[in-house]
Amino acid sequence: MSLRRFLVPPGALSQEVVELPAPEAAHARQVLRLKAGDEVWLLDGQGLKARAVISRLDKAGVSCRVLETRRPDPPTPRLVLCPGLLKGPAMELLAVKLCELGVDEVRPYVGPRTVPRFSDPAAKLERWQRLAAQALKQCGAASPPLFQAPAPLRDVLAAAPAAALKIMLYEDERQTSLAQALAAHPGAGEVWGLVGPEGGLASGEVAAAQAAGFMACGLGPVVLRAETASLALAAVVRLGR
Amino acid sequence: MSLRRFLVPPGALSQEVVELPAPEAAHARQVLRLKAGDEVWLLDGQGLKARAVISRLDKAGVSCRVLETRRPDPPTPRLVLCPGLLKGPAMELLAVKLCELGVDEVRPYVGPRTVPRFSDPAAKLERWQRLAAQALKQCGAASPPLFQAPAPLRDVLAAAPAAALKIMLYEDERQTSLAQALAAHPGAGEVWGLVGPEGGLASGEVAAAQAAGFMACGLGPVVLRAETASLALAAVVRLGR
Repeated sequence: MSLRRFLVPPGALSQEVVELPAPEAAHARQVLRLKAGDEVWLLDGQGLKARAVISRLDKAGVSCRVLETRRPDPPTPRLVLCPGLLKGPAMELLAVKLCELGVDEVRPYVGPRTVPRFSDPAAKLERWQRLAAQALKQCGAASPPLFQAPAPLRDVLAAAPAAALKIMLYEDERQTSLAQALAAHPGAGEVWGLVGPEGGLASGEVAAAQAAGFMACGLGPVVLRAETASLALAAVVRLGR
Repeated sequence: MSLRRFLVPPGALSQEVVELPAPEAAHARQVLRLKAGDEVWLLDGQGLKARAVISRLDKAGVSCRVLETRRPDPPTPRLVLCPGLLKGPAMELLAVKLCELGVDEVRPYVGPRTVPRFSDPAAKLERWQRLAAQALKQCGAASPPLFQAPAPLRDVLAAAPAAALKIMLYEDERQTSLAQALAAHPGAGEVWGLVGPEGGLASGEVAAAQAAGFMACGLGPVVLRAETASLALAAVVRLGR
């Protein structure tokens, strides 16, 4: 059994003894039934990990003494996913799975074919970030994707750096496959992936993305659901080469 | 808008006029509000597709006249996924997503670390097959994965043909990555992928799989959830090259 992982606030790992936040402490003590002397991993959610040992564990809380800290190299290329905003369950699936698959940043966009209009967007954003942080504990990555607030497509396109390899998954593209586009740019330090909403990208969106340097890539004869396309893109970038 | 797709029984597409099964007819008439003269796709779930036109649509049912039939070439390589049996929601996610990702056959196995013991395994199998068939209508593939009943790992291992490229995703493998294993066998006509359950493969299972010719492949430093690993494997085989 690998060591259990717990989230601590940013900055906490600069201390020698770290107090677990209350929900993490309760989980450690009441669910996992850990004891003083057990080793654990602490994650600050910003790329820093620490191996630590539980030095105190009681009703008042759980303290851990840091044994060593590590800042693993972030995966390459840096991977930014730009999905058309999806309904709640699909976005929540993405929050979890894109963390496991090592996506660095998620920039959902709104457009003519994106359906959801969330009544409290800030709460949604916080929920996605919280789900990703929970996935982080499970998968052991060093940091979860950073979720940006949904924005108009033009703003998302404008945010992509000139040097990034910019890919747009587009079901009507028959010439260039995702694999070919990636193979043609093996040294890309940053990949941005644009994925249409349910119903696909509108033609004006395709033109705008191409004007912004996004290369249309097909996924073969089958039409993936929007969230499946996002997962497949992340899997292929992270694990396909 | 691409044409709507409907499932018809195996063999139905040999007729010139095909009656939609009652649930499909109700969906066409009451939900999609299609009319006589509308074109549709008919799928027999066994690799045959037909473009057809609705020739009659009323309370008694929906008839379609076949315009042309096609049997698309199945994707290569043939892809057989062998996941450790997972809990209900994870298996249901796999049933849908593995259909979209073009998996040909799913052979779940049971072992010391697989948790579920379904009270009615036949009903589960039927449910997965039904979910995959619904995904087929959405994604336009020619046939859904064939789900086999969960079986002991040794039976699943023994079913893999000698000529197939056999891959086992194994979190402790540090030498060979999935991408390397696939790149080393570009001409494989059939790929079998073994994916551990939550908690990973037991060491005896790893040894048995290796003895059966399965090559251990790692997925990097992060531990994917079992269902994510299955999806990633299918995405990389189908879209990563």
